[in-house]
Amino acid sequence: MAIAQPAQPAQPAEPTDGRRIRGLKTRQAILAHAARVGSAEGLDAVSLQRLADDLGISKSGLFAHFGSKEELHLATVEAAAQIFTAEVIRPALAQPRGVGRVWALCNSWLSYLERGVFPGGCFFWAVAEEYDSRRPGPVRDSVLAKKAYWSYSLKRAVMEAQEAGDIDADADPEQLAWELDSLMGGANSGFKSGEGRLALERGRRAIRERLVRASTSKAGTKFG
Amino acid sequence: MAIAQPAQPAQPAEPTDGRRIRGLKTRQAILAHAARVGSAEGLDAVSLQRLADDLGISKSGLFAHFGSKEELHLATVEAAAQIFTAEVIRPALAQPRGVGRVWALCNSWLSYLERGVFPGGCFFWAVAEEYDSRRPGPVRDSVLAKKAYWSYSLKRAVMEAQEAGDIDADADPEQLAWELDSLMGGANSGFKSGEGRLALERGRRAIRERLVRASTSKAGTKFG
Repeated sequence: MAIAQPAQPAQPAEPTDGRRIRGLKTRQAILAHAARVGSAEGLDAVSLQRLADDLGISKSGLFAHFGSKEELHLATVEAAAQIFTAEVIRPALAQPRGVGRVWALCNSWLSYLERGVFPGGCFFWAVAEEYDSRRPGPVRDSVLAKKAYWSYSLKRAVMEAQEAGDIDADADPEQLAWELDSLMGGANSGFKSGEGRLALERGRRAIRERLVRASTSKAGTKFG
Repeated sequence: MAIAQPAQPAQPAEPTDGRRIRGLKTRQAILAHAARVGSAEGLDAVSLQRLADDLGISKSGLFAHFGSKEELHLATVEAAAQIFTAEVIRPALAQPRGVGRVWALCNSWLSYLERGVFPGGCFFWAVAEEYDSRRPGPVRDSVLAKKAYWSYSLKRAVMEAQEAGDIDADADPEQLAWELDSLMGGANSGFKSGEGRLALERGRRAIRERLVRASTSKAGTKFG
């Protein structure tokens, strides 16, 4: 990440004018493109040469941003996670804790597919599939950690809904979150392989029925 | 496929001795290996050179079997489908029609993961993920057609279970089959990315509860 280092007295100061901001925006734009390519064609397709060709910038300019393919891939995963947080998690957290927030997280995820945030469906399902049979390494670890964080976010929302009295206290939050996540994965797979929006509708219906079944009578009106 | 052509009188007859059988067995062994590589690393990793290196046979010998990379990939998908039929579908069809057969299909699928038939989990989930964002072409079409055939097999088993009075007549068989398939996909993904057998247990539990919920009281004892 482009975190400013403390300025050394004998060295020139970090640029504080438009240059630094332009540099950050360029970096973000490069990585957003890299994440789009990665979602559709796999991270293996994301190389300095490919980005230089697609974006019409010099490979040496890119090399200044990312010294190696691994560094580029790690930065791409981070950028995809920031996009995911902004597009999926943050909007759902506007809902108060309870089953409404669980439902909002799932809907937000389905909407993220529908809006085509990434052309290859969910970036993380695509890249996890690409990497999960490989040996552990920094990129694989980062992808699986991001996916685990999403699973954890779902589970936490379920537990909060139990504390709020919306979801049955005896439901297993980990199992319920796992099922919701699997249904989203099915929607992602179907959405990309020809079912299109029908897969999103099937996913939405399955998730809603699963949440209704896990909910207490108190939660009745919390589904948007 | 190696289907014998009618012998032409003026040409040498097809070999009917051990050579032809050995040839078929070699072909099967080559394609079984290709399918294992494809499940773990993607079909893009399956090339004549890679197979020649892995199996210690000459690239020209392989070229006699498969004239192009596309031909090799199509043959690999066919071979994977035959393995899938033998390992998943055929054993479950030993169960009589009814919810027991639906449950057997799902269990057989989870067992196919657990037994490591392919090192990269389900061949078809892996390769569909690799191809689903690509343009239509013979390999993509074949992979998606095999996956659709599996979905159809599940749906047909659900409809038979409705006819047998095991599953509620008003259940939507396509939706139910879709949900079961998505839960299997979640098990596959979790199994490969660090959850291991816990993912299979979560999948089995979710599928069982989903089937119990869809079943009539008559079906009570049909879960193994």
